[in-house]
Amino acid sequence: MKPKLKGVIAAIPTPITVAGAPDAAAFVKAAQYLLANGCDGLNVLGTTGEATSFSTAQRMALMSAVKAAGLPMDRLMVGTGAAAVGDATTLTRHAAELGFAGALVLPPFYYKGVSDAGVFAYIERIVQATEQMPVPIYLYHFPALSGVRYDAPLVASLLKAFPDRMAGLKDSSGDMDYARGIAALSSTFAVFPSTEACLAEARSGIFAGCISATANLDAADCAKAFHHADDVALARAVVVRKAFDGKPLIPGIKAMLAERLNLPALARVMPPLVEATSELIDSLAPARGTQAAAE
Amino acid sequence: MKPKLKGVIAAIPTPITVAGAPDAAAFVKAAQYLLANGCDGLNVLGTTGEATSFSTAQRMALMSAVKAAGLPMDRLMVGTGAAAVGDATTLTRHAAELGFAGALVLPPFYYKGVSDAGVFAYIERIVQATEQMPVPIYLYHFPALSGVRYDAPLVASLLKAFPDRMAGLKDSSGDMDYARGIAALSSTFAVFPSTEACLAEARSGIFAGCISATANLDAADCAKAFHHADDVALARAVVVRKAFDGKPLIPGIKAMLAERLNLPALARVMPPLVEATSELIDSLAPARGTQAAAE
Repeated sequence: MKPKLKGVIAAIPTPITVAGAPDAAAFVKAAQYLLANGCDGLNVLGTTGEATSFSTAQRMALMSAVKAAGLPMDRLMVGTGAAAVGDATTLTRHAAELGFAGALVLPPFYYKGVSDAGVFAYIERIVQATEQMPVPIYLYHFPALSGVRYDAPLVASLLKAFPDRMAGLKDSSGDMDYARGIAALSSTFAVFPSTEACLAEARSGIFAGCISATANLDAADCAKAFHHADDVALARAVVVRKAFDGKPLIPGIKAMLAERLNLPALARVMPPLVEATSELIDSLAPARGTQAAAE
Repeated sequence: MKPKLKGVIAAIPTPITVAGAPDAAAFVKAAQYLLANGCDGLNVLGTTGEATSFSTAQRMALMSAVKAAGLPMDRLMVGTGAAAVGDATTLTRHAAELGFAGALVLPPFYYKGVSDAGVFAYIERIVQATEQMPVPIYLYHFPALSGVRYDAPLVASLLKAFPDRMAGLKDSSGDMDYARGIAALSSTFAVFPSTEACLAEARSGIFAGCISATANLDAADCAKAFHHADDVALARAVVVRKAFDGKPLIPGIKAMLAERLNLPALARVMPPLVEATSELIDSLAPARGTQAAAE
């Protein structure tokens, strides 16, 4: 299929209330800011969005709030993967009903060493449950966290079986050879590496763009890099990315964006993540301010 | 605290309907059989029970059905861990309300490389949410699947903070030095390795027993080994265990128990697991028949 999502996509974090639930009002503010400042699209409830740390009901409520707030659904993909195929099916159906541009689906991530046939069966159930509302499916390859891979033969099988549903793949493995191999499977299959460092290569058309956590902080530069071949802007974005090397990425991103948007709920995290310390925030100074210059 | 669960505990598999939900009627039959044939207790909805492959609502419904069927709740522990702390809290509260003898809690298993402080916060929320109905908590250490460890310093912190709630730990790591180290933390903390091979050592009192997948097939021999120091029976049980080496454990156990109890629903699995092939079943012949001799 020919997917619509393209370009710079931030994996938006989820603001959290004092009671420990997604804060929909703060989420909408953050989403509006990002969409107005360089993001072509957003990945709602991805890994940075702590999707798997919320219950299915909490995830569905936030998805509904996004729609109710009038955010542009054609620019939003949403994470709908779960350990239980029934939960993934429920979430993907909800994404379809709300009109999300794509559902980003992790493989089932509790069991390890599972066969491609088992992962295929999981995706097949999700596809079949949404046949009447065929939301585009993006596979979410993040083996360091999920422990289960979408290797090329499995992706090829899924593309062959469900050509009208398989829209693309987000690659958070950091293995560019893997990403290139997946991109080579089909000219219409949209592959998004997870780092803005790929954007120069993405301009050639091999990748559809990037889906990045740090794009929450450097989207304006990412947009200049991708849409206007501005390699000076790209270098600034890569500096932001590198500021997080070896540091807790999600708490750090949340703290920096909370500070920029003056939204304290954005700094909170769910267990097992731990909120950023002031030392962490201080160490991330190189990630602060470049965006303001770019806007 | 002084926990009640002790001895031979089978990690009972979950029978599944054609529609892909837990089959409560078949579950009760299997549970009655196991409790009458060597099992001191059962671990309901553990890894062999594919807990994480079912939605929270499906897990709660099966737990309720177990209680409604009149099974002896003081002999049952139930898995209540989840990636989302809200789900784990809901499930643990349900276990407490129903009177399960223990809740077996995985660490949150999506994020990796998380800190002990983050896992502590997850357990703390579960403990606090069940303060009024203090169901005993058993930590479920299975790093090969969860990717997150309950190492001794973390367990010691939890024991110190919640001495009245931390009842024990199931160790599915296979690392007996780890199991011995955890057992040494407290004389009343019940450690259950996951293999019947530990039962001779367990008789000394260092371990509370075992919680094993293969105990679904060899519990009568395990009981003779643990309660009557019958090392010939133990050797037979270890043969059953070894028949599964290098083979898909859960589909194999399910197929063998389905055959023994004539319950086809027991042979079904949820994605990402794949049902046992006839070749697998044939290769498991050494695991068939020893129990019949023992009963």
